[in-house]
Amino acid sequence: MPDFDPATIRVVACDVFGTTVDWRSGVAGQVAEIFERKGVDLDGGAFADAWRDRYLPAMQRVNRREREWAYLDTLHRESLDELLDEHGVAASFDDADRQRLVRAWHRLPAWEDAVDGLTRLRRRYVVAALSNGGLALLTNLVKAAALPFDCILSAELARTYKPAPEPYLTAAGLLDVNPGEVLMVAAHIWDLDGARDAGLRTAFLARPQEKGPHRTADLATDVTSDLAVTSFRALAEALGC
Amino acid sequence: MPDFDPATIRVVACDVFGTTVDWRSGVAGQVAEIFERKGVDLDGGAFADAWRDRYLPAMQRVNRREREWAYLDTLHRESLDELLDEHGVAASFDDADRQRLVRAWHRLPAWEDAVDGLTRLRRRYVVAALSNGGLALLTNLVKAAALPFDCILSAELARTYKPAPEPYLTAAGLLDVNPGEVLMVAAHIWDLDGARDAGLRTAFLARPQEKGPHRTADLATDVTSDLAVTSFRALAEALGC
Repeated sequence: MPDFDPATIRVVACDVFGTTVDWRSGVAGQVAEIFERKGVDLDGGAFADAWRDRYLPAMQRVNRREREWAYLDTLHRESLDELLDEHGVAASFDDADRQRLVRAWHRLPAWEDAVDGLTRLRRRYVVAALSNGGLALLTNLVKAAALPFDCILSAELARTYKPAPEPYLTAAGLLDVNPGEVLMVAAHIWDLDGARDAGLRTAFLARPQEKGPHRTADLATDVTSDLAVTSFRALAEALGC
Repeated sequence: MPDFDPATIRVVACDVFGTTVDWRSGVAGQVAEIFERKGVDLDGGAFADAWRDRYLPAMQRVNRREREWAYLDTLHRESLDELLDEHGVAASFDDADRQRLVRAWHRLPAWEDAVDGLTRLRRRYVVAALSNGGLALLTNLVKAAALPFDCILSAELARTYKPAPEPYLTAAGLLDVNPGEVLMVAAHIWDLDGARDAGLRTAFLARPQEKGPHRTADLATDVTSDLAVTSFRALAEALGC
């Protein structure tokens, strides 16, 4: 990898779940509320953790072509159905309830630095969301959280999930830039490894609270990236915005 | 077609060139400036008209599969090369000049009602750009004109141009709504005819100045659509936003 020069970057592509929004608090809170209304005695945070645990394996089955393309809402619904079964509470949730639970992932709070940092980054770069969430989900999420992205890109457009190279290369192609002109920003080592393998530049954005109080988030000491920062504000600073 | 009820609409999809931005003034002005710098004595407005005249035929060749998919910048470049040849001024423009001319389509002024009207529409609906422009072009254009779209969709995502049904249906699919839940807004009869054939609802937005002083724009009296308005503000009003 050549030395990193911010002047070579034209697009800042941002992961969303965990990096830009706090999925765990958001999902845990909405799940807890629905569980309480249903009289189901399960912890929202633990349920959110278990739900998220099924995310990577479910996407890997798609990427290994063990199943047809399915967008994230479908994967979330399948893992939800399994989890409700396993907890012995399936009978408490009809189809509409389950749709509501899946929609919890469409409405999540932004980390406090996100709107301000993205606004600054936009002054100099095209700033895109690049997530494994489907385009409809991301559109809802970005709108509700008022995230100032220039455009929304999704793994759905490549019908393959990150960290496979296709979503990163599709994003670069659609924005008409070379992969090396894209800086991928993410809180997850697996995402940055995928981006780097596809020829993108990488910025690790540490989100120590991402996985809640009982788990350890990815750490800067374990990651290989061109930049490592602790907020979108710090990223804007590092890039001279 | 059933009666039109705004409550059935979830997505407002907006055409861009002519409908949301004033392509003719924008292109004519930038072309005139470059021509003057080059000492080329050609009228910017007439050149913009001639350039735009090649737009529909070029897209039709793609849609008829007479050639491979090519995004709008490529079509613009090819028709530019032809026009410069025909005017006998090809020698005055090198590759960088021609790239600059093609990029004129990336930076166009919004019609004065667009930002305000779209802002109001966003309160109730998901508001998407849906244009034959490529995603990179649209991202540049929307950013420069500060158009408050919730997301940017392009015919490029369907690799087929409007008015074929694919771009309309791809947009509805990506936003996870039924075609009949999308209201297509355009200043062009051919676009609304395509949208209606694909099952979308339609709003004609008259732009009498769209084609400049020497040509007649499409008129409300000639169009079949669910709504007919004269500005994005009036559309917001008609939809109760």
